[in-house]
Amino acid sequence: MEKIQEAVRLDHRHMLNLRDLDITEIHRILKRAAEFKAGAKAQFPGKVVANLFFEPSTRTHQSFLMAEKRLGMEELNLIPEISSLQKGESLYDTVKTFEAIGADAVVIRAKEDRYYEELVGRISIPVLNGGDGSGDHPTQSLLDLLTIQEEFGRFKDLKILIVGDIRHSRVAATNVEVMRRLGMTVCLSAPEEFKRSGVGYCSLDGVLQGMDIVMLLRVQHERHENAFDQDSVAYNRQFGLNRDRVATMQKHAIIMHPAPFNRGWEITSDVVECSRSRIFKQMENGVYVRMAVLERALR
Amino acid sequence: MEKIQEAVRLDHRHMLNLRDLDITEIHRILKRAAEFKAGAKAQFPGKVVANLFFEPSTRTHQSFLMAEKRLGMEELNLIPEISSLQKGESLYDTVKTFEAIGADAVVIRAKEDRYYEELVGRISIPVLNGGDGSGDHPTQSLLDLLTIQEEFGRFKDLKILIVGDIRHSRVAATNVEVMRRLGMTVCLSAPEEFKRSGVGYCSLDGVLQGMDIVMLLRVQHERHENAFDQDSVAYNRQFGLNRDRVATMQKHAIIMHPAPFNRGWEITSDVVECSRSRIFKQMENGVYVRMAVLERALR
Amino acid sequence: MEKIQEAVRLDHRHMLNLRDLDITEIHRILKRAAEFKAGAKAQFPGKVVANLFFEPSTRTHQSFLMAEKRLGMEELNLIPEISSLQKGESLYDTVKTFEAIGADAVVIRAKEDRYYEELVGRISIPVLNGGDGSGDHPTQSLLDLLTIQEEFGRFKDLKILIVGDIRHSRVAATNVEVMRRLGMTVCLSAPEEFKRSGVGYCSLDGVLQGMDIVMLLRVQHERHENAFDQDSVAYNRQFGLNRDRVATMQKHAIIMHPAPFNRGWEITSDVVECSRSRIFKQMENGVYVRMAVLERALR
Repeated sequence: MEKIQEAVRLDHRHMLNLRDLDITEIHRILKRAAEFKAGAKAQFPGKVVANLFFEPSTRTHQSFLMAEKRLGMEELNLIPEISSLQKGESLYDTVKTFEAIGADAVVIRAKEDRYYEELVGRISIPVLNGGDGSGDHPTQSLLDLLTIQEEFGRFKDLKILIVGDIRHSRVAATNVEVMRRLGMTVCLSAPEEFKRSGVGYCSLDGVLQGMDIVMLLRVQHERHENAFDQDSVAYNRQFGLNRDRVATMQKHAIIMHPAPFNRGWEITSDVVECSRSRIFKQMENGVYVRMAVLERALR
Repeated sequence: MEKIQEAVRLDHRHMLNLRDLDITEIHRILKRAAEFKAGAKAQFPGKVVANLFFEPSTRTHQSFLMAEKRLGMEELNLIPEISSLQKGESLYDTVKTFEAIGADAVVIRAKEDRYYEELVGRISIPVLNGGDGSGDHPTQSLLDLLTIQEEFGRFKDLKILIVGDIRHSRVAATNVEVMRRLGMTVCLSAPEEFKRSGVGYCSLDGVLQGMDIVMLLRVQHERHENAFDQDSVAYNRQFGLNRDRVATMQKHAIIMHPAPFNRGWEITSDVVECSRSRIFKQMENGVYVRMAVLERALR
Repeated sequence: MEKIQEAVRLDHRHMLNLRDLDITEIHRILKRAAEFKAGAKAQFPGKVVANLFFEPSTRTHQSFLMAEKRLGMEELNLIPEISSLQKGESLYDTVKTFEAIGADAVVIRAKEDRYYEELVGRISIPVLNGGDGSGDHPTQSLLDLLTIQEEFGRFKDLKILIVGDIRHSRVAATNVEVMRRLGMTVCLSAPEEFKRSGVGYCSLDGVLQGMDIVMLLRVQHERHENAFDQDSVAYNRQFGLNRDRVATMQKHAIIMHPAPFNRGWEITSDVVECSRSRIFKQMENGVYVRMAVLERALR
């Protein structure tokens, strides 16, 4: 912890997690993202970003690529299946390689929690965390915050309910910490097998009608092959959003989801694109947030 | 059918199949492709095309990418193996994601026939079909037509023989319809197991000497593991092109193949690059046709 | 051999191996690489390079991509897993396809020794060899030479020891030939199972203290599943570099490795980044060498 916080203090260009950023810096990034959304331009000709995605991703990867294009940056992409990772090369040595050939920044998604601890302080280019295991997903939280800010114009005293696989979700972990710090009330609801210990939980139906925001989390089937044996209908009835539940929400309340979503499981298909849903707006905002984070790393 | 035709009528920017395009529009696209081949320039800075290839492809994929580069467009590429498709995300939700992050058009190859029916009318960006299952392959047909037009200066009354796996070939399906509409005489020849029902067939050797064009189709080994148990020599003797058959063709007649080809099966190796072959010219023309289709989508 | 040498003589733009290049040409390429490193610029707008990597690679592939970006070239990338290679298309037909759609040059890594013999003379665009089987790796040798030249200002009478899997290493094969031609003394050391027949070997510890350069080779675990049954400690003690051995080297002597390296096997982890190591400098120099080679192909 100390090592990282010091590295971050020395090097403001990393984006590893939101815990190490103070509120002022978070507001500054959101402001810049909003400026990009409003049409602000910035160009970084000759800057090259290496995108290293060791876990499958569509949104985060493609959204970073789009942000790089919008900023006139060049991209390198590591495809693990056809790289020297096949010959056993470590993450650290792979990143050192991209540094040596001249990459100006590196975006990484990896399955190890806090993979970046072995990098910061040992490499000279900024690391942008595109998701570490069940750890953090800072740019996802930032896009969630931008979406909430656009909707409500503030964070203070807003009530959000996060529902689903809390235990494995880096989105939930990052959001809970930063949203509480921003003055929001965060409630959690989850099946027993998806709970993270040491955290309080409430009943979905008990709190739903008081919420400003409901954020669903994806049932990560690839992580729970046998651990979770309900069907979609049963899961949705207990922990999912559907037309009936949506009808009980406050008039102004909105629905969020980091996606990919499982239609029918945590959210029924008709709710995905209903008028309360901000799911595709979140994706759109992801590009602007990543532009702000890339600019911060390379300006 | 109605839904799509209406969507296409409302939105002239899609390229789903050629059936929905009238002759005038087809001629217009071919004219524009010929202009690009003659050196016409067009630039679309800031436009981003998402290329989603869910089936293996070299020619169509790389040719679209080259066309995008020539037009100064930017590209995104989905690699199914490392994307959220691994987490079960549907085609529709994947395309919505690319729309949300700001893609201006999407090129798709997918194994489902008419996969685009679930997209048109529900997304706001043009869909360019890079091949749907055993359905259609409109840009391949357009490049075939451009190659024929360059050779003969017309379509009317030309005689073409298409030989091989008619049943599974989207190239054949699209070509038969459009070529007949353009006034060409289309003959088909195929082994029993490769015939599509409800269509007339003729004998390869019976009609070969009267043809202006012979188009071979690839034996799709990956689709016929046990269904087709001939060897290459036997197949070539019955349904393939070789030096002896080529000698019986009219002096001006040409040979075409959508590729990839199986040397020795539907075409012997020496015939692939003989003076009658337009196979690599077809590939070259593919870039110009796709430039015309991309410009049409994004102008 | 004759066919290739003639093709190379007729077409100075290929880069197949260093044997076919005379000393003057090698010096010219190194001089141009050094100019690029010193800040020289060159731009090739509209030129497109196809990068075909049929074997896993991080450094060579990404380094070529970086060189292409620095020169303002556009790139196409074949990903074997999602291309028509899955349908059995040959290397020759794949390269012909890229030529047909307008690629201006092709960079290839393939597992067949001298794969390029079936290409040169039959295609019209330059072939840049990114490594052929256990054959050659000319751009790797050029970057090794650039690194040595920067360090010592000359090649003549320098003593290099190459240690490890000589038999399978295309890096060793190319380096031994060209370094001897440049007047260097090349010693080899290898375990019995890694020796190439017809070459003399010496004892690592017998010659180490007289060397100017020690170049380690990677233990290619993927090639020796059962053939080599030592553990890392035993291998390192006999044929690896470690702190104790490094202490016996001349004051000015340097350490090189083509990477990826196996920390603990042919080189201990602390030696990888010690002050004598030029390993990451080699990677950096790879970009400039490849810029020179690409410029030579497309000027």
